[in-house]
Amino acid sequence: MIRAGIVGGTGYTGVELLRILALHPNVEVAVVTSRADAGTRVDAAYPSLRGVIDVVFSIPDVEALAGCDVVFFATPNGTAMLMTLTLLDRGVKVIDLSADFRLKDAAEWSVWYGMEHVCPELLPEAIYGLPEVNREAIKNARLVANPGCYPTSVQLGFLPLLEKGLADVGQLIADVKSGVSGAGRKAELAYLMSETGESFKAYAVSGHRHLPEISQGLKLAAGASVNLTFVPHLIPMIRGIHATLYAQVSHNKASLEEIQALYEQRYAYEPCVDVLPSGSHPDTRNVKGSNKCQISLHQPQGGQTIVILSVIDNLVKGAAGQAVQNMNLMFGFPELDGLKTLALYP
Amino acid sequence: MIRAGIVGGTGYTGVELLRILALHPNVEVAVVTSRADAGTRVDAAYPSLRGVIDVVFSIPDVEALAGCDVVFFATPNGTAMLMTLTLLDRGVKVIDLSADFRLKDAAEWSVWYGMEHVCPELLPEAIYGLPEVNREAIKNARLVANPGCYPTSVQLGFLPLLEKGLADVGQLIADVKSGVSGAGRKAELAYLMSETGESFKAYAVSGHRHLPEISQGLKLAAGASVNLTFVPHLIPMIRGIHATLYAQVSHNKASLEEIQALYEQRYAYEPCVDVLPSGSHPDTRNVKGSNKCQISLHQPQGGQTIVILSVIDNLVKGAAGQAVQNMNLMFGFPELDGLKTLALYP
Amino acid sequence: MIRAGIVGGTGYTGVELLRILALHPNVEVAVVTSRADAGTRVDAAYPSLRGVIDVVFSIPDVEALAGCDVVFFATPNGTAMLMTLTLLDRGVKVIDLSADFRLKDAAEWSVWYGMEHVCPELLPEAIYGLPEVNREAIKNARLVANPGCYPTSVQLGFLPLLEKGLADVGQLIADVKSGVSGAGRKAELAYLMSETGESFKAYAVSGHRHLPEISQGLKLAAGASVNLTFVPHLIPMIRGIHATLYAQVSHNKASLEEIQALYEQRYAYEPCVDVLPSGSHPDTRNVKGSNKCQISLHQPQGGQTIVILSVIDNLVKGAAGQAVQNMNLMFGFPELDGLKTLALYP
Amino acid sequence: MIRAGIVGGTGYTGVELLRILALHPNVEVAVVTSRADAGTRVDAAYPSLRGVIDVVFSIPDVEALAGCDVVFFATPNGTAMLMTLTLLDRGVKVIDLSADFRLKDAAEWSVWYGMEHVCPELLPEAIYGLPEVNREAIKNARLVANPGCYPTSVQLGFLPLLEKGLADVGQLIADVKSGVSGAGRKAELAYLMSETGESFKAYAVSGHRHLPEISQGLKLAAGASVNLTFVPHLIPMIRGIHATLYAQVSHNKASLEEIQALYEQRYAYEPCVDVLPSGSHPDTRNVKGSNKCQISLHQPQGGQTIVILSVIDNLVKGAAGQAVQNMNLMFGFPELDGLKTLALYP
Repeated sequence: MIRAGIVGGTGYTGVELLRILALHPNVEVAVVTSRADAGTRVDAAYPSLRGVIDVVFSIPDVEALAGCDVVFFATPNGTAMLMTLTLLDRGVKVIDLSADFRLKDAAEWSVWYGMEHVCPELLPEAIYGLPEVNREAIKNARLVANPGCYPTSVQLGFLPLLEKGLADVGQLIADVKSGVSGAGRKAELAYLMSETGESFKAYAVSGHRHLPEISQGLKLAAGASVNLTFVPHLIPMIRGIHATLYAQVSHNKASLEEIQALYEQRYAYEPCVDVLPSGSHPDTRNVKGSNKCQISLHQPQGGQTIVILSVIDNLVKGAAGQAVQNMNLMFGFPELDGLKTLALYP
Repeated sequence: MIRAGIVGGTGYTGVELLRILALHPNVEVAVVTSRADAGTRVDAAYPSLRGVIDVVFSIPDVEALAGCDVVFFATPNGTAMLMTLTLLDRGVKVIDLSADFRLKDAAEWSVWYGMEHVCPELLPEAIYGLPEVNREAIKNARLVANPGCYPTSVQLGFLPLLEKGLADVGQLIADVKSGVSGAGRKAELAYLMSETGESFKAYAVSGHRHLPEISQGLKLAAGASVNLTFVPHLIPMIRGIHATLYAQVSHNKASLEEIQALYEQRYAYEPCVDVLPSGSHPDTRNVKGSNKCQISLHQPQGGQTIVILSVIDNLVKGAAGQAVQNMNLMFGFPELDGLKTLALYP
Repeated sequence: MIRAGIVGGTGYTGVELLRILALHPNVEVAVVTSRADAGTRVDAAYPSLRGVIDVVFSIPDVEALAGCDVVFFATPNGTAMLMTLTLLDRGVKVIDLSADFRLKDAAEWSVWYGMEHVCPELLPEAIYGLPEVNREAIKNARLVANPGCYPTSVQLGFLPLLEKGLADVGQLIADVKSGVSGAGRKAELAYLMSETGESFKAYAVSGHRHLPEISQGLKLAAGASVNLTFVPHLIPMIRGIHATLYAQVSHNKASLEEIQALYEQRYAYEPCVDVLPSGSHPDTRNVKGSNKCQISLHQPQGGQTIVILSVIDNLVKGAAGQAVQNMNLMFGFPELDGLKTLALYP
Repeated sequence: MIRAGIVGGTGYTGVELLRILALHPNVEVAVVTSRADAGTRVDAAYPSLRGVIDVVFSIPDVEALAGCDVVFFATPNGTAMLMTLTLLDRGVKVIDLSADFRLKDAAEWSVWYGMEHVCPELLPEAIYGLPEVNREAIKNARLVANPGCYPTSVQLGFLPLLEKGLADVGQLIADVKSGVSGAGRKAELAYLMSETGESFKAYAVSGHRHLPEISQGLKLAAGASVNLTFVPHLIPMIRGIHATLYAQVSHNKASLEEIQALYEQRYAYEPCVDVLPSGSHPDTRNVKGSNKCQISLHQPQGGQTIVILSVIDNLVKGAAGQAVQNMNLMFGFPELDGLKTLALYP
């Protein structure tokens, strides 16, 4: 039984961590912090957790957190990096759900996140928490940078093609659509029901923070720089990400059947990636509340464009679920502990 | 480990049973029937169940079903009653999620359901599957009539008041609102997204089939006939029922504090009923995907009207979850086996 | 052609006024104020108005507003009352969409709205802007207090019964459900898509500000004090209000047919109230975007409870549409000028 | 005043035609047909039209239709072609909202629509009803093939680039998302609220019927065959289409500013196409219920990929609104008669 702490327990990823960890056989949630709600019972703020969570929000306190075996940061960018060094020095393992440790290049991080990185010396050590790529390194890591939601769906969708050098890396397109919870639990006009309901639009087309993170990952997979056009959109629903990925694959490189076989092989032993029969249309609802990523492949009209469809739940495989998957690896628990819940359908 | 069969596995309650039973420590789903989809893999029809359910839909066959320890009927009304006698004779326990065995009066049933009951002799034996009322009888039952969704939320909301004779039973009002999945997985214009989205209306105001079932239950609780006005409405969402109940309670009978204490007491040992602090506003989302019923009490402006708010997930505590709760009781399993999943928030 | 000013043009009722007035044959929108957005083009903030509105938001300025023939206040409570006296003295007619002038009793207003009324001397003159009751007075008014959304749907639903003394005024219940835009365009967590989507709950059950307003109107209609239990709820959609009203009508007073005839008669010449055939189930979507109120009557199971269903669009007949209807009356325009748009279905 | 007939008046495009024509100053809706609902009042089936439409559904009858000046076919594919020749011979103008006359190549049409065309001789005469391209021809047409919804949004988005030969026509991608009303008013499981709510997926990726229609139009614009990858998706909302279009434009061909100027010029006199400032993010809600198409341009990260965002209301500019726009042209009415309604926001 290990003790877990959650810093920033009042955002959606924080509450998801609570939902998942509450039923984890090997974890006891010992500390949940929130500056704004310190002193309030967690289950008073979140009645969905009544009866299972018996914790009161506390002010973030390094001592209390140092008493944990693992600390999850479900905080705004720029927060985790303030406490991580101290916690690592105290022997605590850290899993950061924010972006603070995702980019290897501190200067690039500064450009995209608008602030100076306070502990760039940790960047080389931080392991990017995508188990499908970094499983072994995660097992031995002290510090895991949990991937962003869009980056998870896009990388899982592109990896096999890029690893095998089958796609033209100068022409990758990711047209991605997300439910509104991806924006977080923030009181902003743009995310009101009255602003997003019965509504659809793109945003941040000129450049979204996830772009450098995705490019970094695709470059590692391809062994070469990639040119990715990444266009995010907002769907009038709460949970779910659907990535429609376009890659140019010349006929002599591989047929659709060969690519299908490649994906099935690549993910054969991945418990959280499910390659559907080619031609399927994955639906975000079939992974809602679960830690699965479902993928399918198409080659419309037999042309050179391969279309990959990739769906996840942005709060689970896109955040909290993946964080717990990483924790399981770091502590040697069965990888799916706490993550067996099936998708909620309908 | 017992073997379970599900007749009518392609409706929403059928799929919910599969979702819940797939992770039940003591149940193996052996048979799932569907006339229309016989021969298809269950997880091909329901990709949310890929990797956990390895069953093919089969034609309903008494022999195969007789090899089960328990059979759930998630069928249209009038179907369960055709097979139940045979299954009971073969030693199979039956849990009917349809209405076939809910009403004690076969004639009344005929009027409301528009057909003759083919085995009215089973009605006295059938136990109404509301554990909060019939726990002991359910434990000893061969045949359980699983309650309807509206009836569950309304009865749980009214019971304590009626059992103590505190309300004027001549003036009960249940204004109830449900998500669209309550209508079932039927190709009908009325339930299209384009007909129900961004939309709200009442229906069946002149008389809904659940009315006699609710009245029967309230009468048992009150020990007297009740006059209930029951008005259902359709909410533009998939899951959830919110019942707003109105009872007249004269001041000299009880204060709000006394009624609050009564409810807390009545449900103190009920694992699936959660009485919130008085004045709370339960939200269907806080029980979405879970087997909980959350209730709160109000006495607006200190008047004689007590308002009870009661929320459930119509597919879980309103159907499949309650059915599994009943199964656990019938087989002596821990009552919450398979039912510990927390609500999916947000 | 008259000149109209809108104070507080950035809320939903403000934008609705713009949408309706943009096509009004006799009105030119001359001034639209917003402290926060002063200097911005209206159609930059609201791209739905591109091509029709050529106005820039301005700081509220009494001189500019005094140059208008009519000024609409689409402001938070407590704002209109600061400028109204001055505008009236300058010969401007004022239509207040906020609550500042709705209650006749300034002390009661203070209790419910949490502030002192600064010009209670205007309260006797202010005409409550419900044309179906006050048409003649509105025609001669300088100052109209535009009704709240819930009060509009509830009063229109109850009026005929109460005017004829048919209902037991000690036992009225209004169970009302509203889309989220009724809360306004405010950056508050409670109204995020992620908090309200796939979700339903009651709120303010202990006492909602609209309660005294509704009670005031029902009392006038009945000629006696009424005891109203009013329970509002939030629907996961943007527009629409559905009121389910319960009244006790003893059999010897009137039959359903007689009450139906009464409603049809009462509203026979009301262009914005549409009494449906008895037994109908009005749907909010059938009045979405239009200034209509649709009503139907039921007498479930032939009992003493009459159920009235009343639907409006909270932003149109519940606010901006009604305000324009009042303006038309005040200026002698055809009552439906600018209000002929049909509901947007589906 | 002309007389209009609507064949297939019970689908969503039929009802939209009614909504728009009811307020058209020069049109009287004389005939509305429906085999299934013959004999029923239109406003009984569609309460949103009460008070404005006084018509009873009738069996489609050539004589009655021949008494109209214009007949709109809002029917399933394969229906209009059965009656069009006769009506044209009787001097009636025909506007077909189905696909029967959209493709010039009858053989290609057969392949995609699964049936033989019964009057291919009309195909050369039929004018494709996209006013932004064929305004003059439409003015003189007897028979207009109203474009599909996806084709409208995609072609309007791509046209200026292709007409000027700026894009690599071998690499066009259209990632398009639509609300569910695009599927029509059909009782099919796939379009239930319970199947589409809180849900997002692609469909028909291997080949959608709109593909040949779009390719035909883009080829005309480009003067060369195009290679288009077209991927449609279903959004959990009722109305709206958002097309995200990708074109490769090499730097020496044109800068973003030049392309922006090109689009503004190309559509300067188009009353129903609105080019937003470059970098904007059009939202389907800003054209909901209106006949507008809003477009904006992006050049993410200054690369070679130009991203065009194009939004319409699938039932208005994507169907009924465009049909009325065409009718206005055919009869010499002001082009925007009946089409001035502003988008319904929020």
